[in-house]
Amino acid sequence: MPDTFIINTTNSPYSKLLPVAISEVSFTDGLLAERLRTIKEITIPTQYELLEQTQRLFNFRRAAGKTQGDYFGFFFNDTDVYKWIEAVSYTLIWEWDDDLDKLLDQVIEEIKLAQDEDGYLDTYFTFERKKERWTNLKDMHELYCAGHLIQAAVAHHRATGKTNLLEVAIKFADHIDSVFGPGKREGTSGHPEIEMALVELFLETRDYRYLNLAKFFIDERGKGLVGGDLYHIDHKPFRDLDEIVGHAVRSLYLNCGATDLYLEIGDISILNALERLWRNFTERKMYITGGAGARYEGESFGEEYELPNETAYAETCAAIASFMWNYRMLFAIPEGRFADIMEQTLYNGLLSGISLDGMHYFYVNPLADNGKHRRQKWFACACCPPNIARLIASLPGYVYTKSYEGIWLHLYTPNKAKIEWNNSIIEMEVKTNYPWDGEIDITINSDAHFSLFLRVPGWAKGYSIFVNHKDEEPQIVNGYAKIERDWKKGDNIRISLDMKPEIIVSNPKVKDNIGKIAVKRGPIVYCIEQIDNNFPICDLEVDIEKDLVPIYSEILKGVVTIKGKGYIPEKDLWKKNLYLPKKVLNSKRIEIEFTLIPYYAWANREQGPMQVWIRKA
Amino acid sequence: MPDTFIINTTNSPYSKLLPVAISEVSFTDGLLAERLRTIKEITIPTQYELLEQTQRLFNFRRAAGKTQGDYFGFFFNDTDVYKWIEAVSYTLIWEWDDDLDKLLDQVIEEIKLAQDEDGYLDTYFTFERKKERWTNLKDMHELYCAGHLIQAAVAHHRATGKTNLLEVAIKFADHIDSVFGPGKREGTSGHPEIEMALVELFLETRDYRYLNLAKFFIDERGKGLVGGDLYHIDHKPFRDLDEIVGHAVRSLYLNCGATDLYLEIGDISILNALERLWRNFTERKMYITGGAGARYEGESFGEEYELPNETAYAETCAAIASFMWNYRMLFAIPEGRFADIMEQTLYNGLLSGISLDGMHYFYVNPLADNGKHRRQKWFACACCPPNIARLIASLPGYVYTKSYEGIWLHLYTPNKAKIEWNNSIIEMEVKTNYPWDGEIDITINSDAHFSLFLRVPGWAKGYSIFVNHKDEEPQIVNGYAKIERDWKKGDNIRISLDMKPEIIVSNPKVKDNIGKIAVKRGPIVYCIEQIDNNFPICDLEVDIEKDLVPIYSEILKGVVTIKGKGYIPEKDLWKKNLYLPKKVLNSKRIEIEFTLIPYYAWANREQGPMQVWIRKA
Repeated sequence: MPDTFIINTTNSPYSKLLPVAISEVSFTDGLLAERLRTIKEITIPTQYELLEQTQRLFNFRRAAGKTQGDYFGFFFNDTDVYKWIEAVSYTLIWEWDDDLDKLLDQVIEEIKLAQDEDGYLDTYFTFERKKERWTNLKDMHELYCAGHLIQAAVAHHRATGKTNLLEVAIKFADHIDSVFGPGKREGTSGHPEIEMALVELFLETRDYRYLNLAKFFIDERGKGLVGGDLYHIDHKPFRDLDEIVGHAVRSLYLNCGATDLYLEIGDISILNALERLWRNFTERKMYITGGAGARYEGESFGEEYELPNETAYAETCAAIASFMWNYRMLFAIPEGRFADIMEQTLYNGLLSGISLDGMHYFYVNPLADNGKHRRQKWFACACCPPNIARLIASLPGYVYTKSYEGIWLHLYTPNKAKIEWNNSIIEMEVKTNYPWDGEIDITINSDAHFSLFLRVPGWAKGYSIFVNHKDEEPQIVNGYAKIERDWKKGDNIRISLDMKPEIIVSNPKVKDNIGKIAVKRGPIVYCIEQIDNNFPICDLEVDIEKDLVPIYSEILKGVVTIKGKGYIPEKDLWKKNLYLPKKVLNSKRIEIEFTLIPYYAWANREQGPMQVWIRKA
Repeated sequence: MPDTFIINTTNSPYSKLLPVAISEVSFTDGLLAERLRTIKEITIPTQYELLEQTQRLFNFRRAAGKTQGDYFGFFFNDTDVYKWIEAVSYTLIWEWDDDLDKLLDQVIEEIKLAQDEDGYLDTYFTFERKKERWTNLKDMHELYCAGHLIQAAVAHHRATGKTNLLEVAIKFADHIDSVFGPGKREGTSGHPEIEMALVELFLETRDYRYLNLAKFFIDERGKGLVGGDLYHIDHKPFRDLDEIVGHAVRSLYLNCGATDLYLEIGDISILNALERLWRNFTERKMYITGGAGARYEGESFGEEYELPNETAYAETCAAIASFMWNYRMLFAIPEGRFADIMEQTLYNGLLSGISLDGMHYFYVNPLADNGKHRRQKWFACACCPPNIARLIASLPGYVYTKSYEGIWLHLYTPNKAKIEWNNSIIEMEVKTNYPWDGEIDITINSDAHFSLFLRVPGWAKGYSIFVNHKDEEPQIVNGYAKIERDWKKGDNIRISLDMKPEIIVSNPKVKDNIGKIAVKRGPIVYCIEQIDNNFPICDLEVDIEKDLVPIYSEILKGVVTIKGKGYIPEKDLWKKNLYLPKKVLNSKRIEIEFTLIPYYAWANREQGPMQVWIRKA
């Protein structure tokens, strides 16, 4: 275990915030802590087995010449290993584990042996395919694979202080830099990812070549070098984009890289494009679950307001990418709207990507289903499973940020933090039953003068804040309650957020949601699942005038369910009628009680239909 | 003008009713009388001009060798002339006109000259195409054209007593009979129509060859002789059909012919198939306007509950075909449900097919539009304009039927009738402002003992009947109030139907109607058209708790409009919001009054959007 974890952050004036590292925050209890624990205890070991079983590790051994046989699987399968390394590295930060550390070293050694002398590393392009290297940037994901290697290496370096993987990554990055760049070869990646990785490598090494290379790859877009089409987000220069289009994961990863680049170089035309894309995404193309990508075809965004429920794609990786992008946007523009989307995505369309048992995954996250969609153990294209592992494992790093004014608390979850700020350590503890309860209790365990920025979620229709049990009415700045004072050890802050269940309606331009409502409580989007209800859920019409009652339940590892009242038609009423007077319908419907569960937790029990958007009576 | 009009009706025991002919009923006033007048004064002369301009008549002259040049237009263009002759013939029955009679004779002479010696008549298959006759029954519509010729000829014979066109038709029918039939050539028509025409020719001539040929053409279906597919309704034998599929007009024309055949031969397996098709149509595939055919593709029925509004096809000809079929079903099963569909179709999806000015036509009758869909003067494929002319011109023949028990009144419209019944003439007069008013006043102007069967529409939630100003509670048999008595000259019957505007909801399986309502009053389906409302109608959400108020208006040649209350969102509310709490929406919406007009009358004024199904608040 390293003495201290290395944290290299920007010194750019364009970054209004600085990260608070995973090493500074410990989750103590509650939903997210449970998810982290499951990642470590279940997901990571089972995924390691799968990396072996599905020949992802074999491909490295083969490339190293240690074994014989054909390359196995998709040409981007290396990334599953890299993302798994990244996930394991994050867990080491919040909970050291000698065995996992050793296992990582073993795997890293295999990766290292697969690297060419010139630094090139992609186990698909070895031997007979060596001559095809860099010949098809549009489709073949070499730069995408490099990006995940770099991210894994930086995470591993931060987690362990070791440079064994970082050296591999740097060697490959240097090779890429020797091939691509102004005056060298033109090109960019058909699947963005390298951009944010290179900025991270720049931050880790302070080597400006990597930042310049990230900028180069972003500047190369829109020149038709990788398809020239919407799918590859190559139809326009990045700075000219005004509609979020194309393959959802690629599009959102690109936005992550572009945000990272902006934070370093301050090019306002990039930020303006990002702001336009963010508005277009959140105002026209985002599912209420935070899900991104309406279409199976091209795993892509659809037209504006094209948000079908049953055929929603909403890939788990796209939710992850959106979460990562919104976090980055917060550094450029510290406004609660970005943390709101992070939270909305995390608790809904992102957490839905993994089963409660930690070893089954959704690639696609529909908002309605007839009962056939179930989480799988693995996929031939297995981008999502290790991606959600690394994201969840890194969650402690997303809770806080800091600025010269003080500490920002974005996500409420029980934790203890020791945050380096202004050459001192600020200790604090958050106690809460969030997201099931809106009461958040914060204790400051240090003496210091700073501002505490507490996010007041956009969904909170009411809130109150007490400092040392006295009502406080702090200034709200862009969605954050700012409380500046000389904090003394033992000071207590209590923020109470109104968590009444809310009936949500959709923009009527979203055709599939017309006449339907969704239910939210706090950050949680609810759904109706067949197993909790003794009538066919497709028949339900919600009476929105009746109360929605939250009830804590032990099911699904403990969640708040919501009960409400509604109607189902008399049996067979609609079998022989195409149209009915509303009065006749009203006289032939039966009042029933229904139960809703959090969307993220559906499909963890008996198979059956599910709906987020439910018809209203 | 003939001394009496010839009426040849069935003597089959399977026909529970007998027709009351056009010649026995005079429309006196009101909406339908106005439509008939417009057909005669505007539609018929303008269509004649178009038949000349678009070379439909030229094709006959060319076939006769009187002129040179290529055949013009679609290969089924002869039918436009035939349908126009049929329309004119009907008008002659209710209003003799020497000029039109002469014009008909002229046109008929040209048709006659185009006929081959062997009786074959189709101006497309002349000269160089002669050898292609009867080579492509699936696509080339020769039997369809023959059917319309026969229908025109029978109508003309009934109207004028002349046999000039009937002889042509018989000659062609005999030719067809010489070619097709058991032991002769196999085959049937890719586009049904000939079947009902042949039964009609049988009734007119009592020549059983035509009935047998009709049966042959129906029995030949499902053998793969015309495609073997759903589109041509050739995938199954007719008697095995259980879902209404394929090209909507073909499907419904086929049902007309099959019903006609059943009425003569009493084959219960045909009636059972018809009943299944009727239930499938009315319970799963019919628009609230009576429109038939959901899809542009193949002008066809869609899946069950596939009833999109904006992309509805609902061809005018299909509404006409459904009206004709339901009338025929009434003869087999005298139940009000068939007359209900006749009425629902007539006043909505059928009348919508022609403009109030009588010279513009919808081929396609959508239930929602963004403002671009307008009636046209004519079409390259002009089946609908002369079809609606002949249907409207024949409406007096659809109002009554008779049985051994008495007189059946199916459609309420102001009229005077002199009906031959049981060797006497029963005179009666109907006064009403129907469909704008539910009060119907009937005077019997003969002394006779018979039952009067008054239809109590399925939509009437309440009704009362008075005989000679005394409340009567007659037996209701299958949707008809049966009043049997010794009627005396001057006896008065008053039927009062509750015409409160009704909110209609759709089967939730019709996706496009979820969360929406339609408004009906009596038989009239309403729509909202932009011109009557000072807000964007796409923004409207109806408050279904508020009263809907019918108000007579002089617009659109005099209609009852309906005013109601609803809401529109504050300007731009939905521009930047994809989802909103219902409470927020409710606080940011503006109450407005909206105006609805009858659906059939839309698109007769300034261009603008229209909706039948409107979102409810």
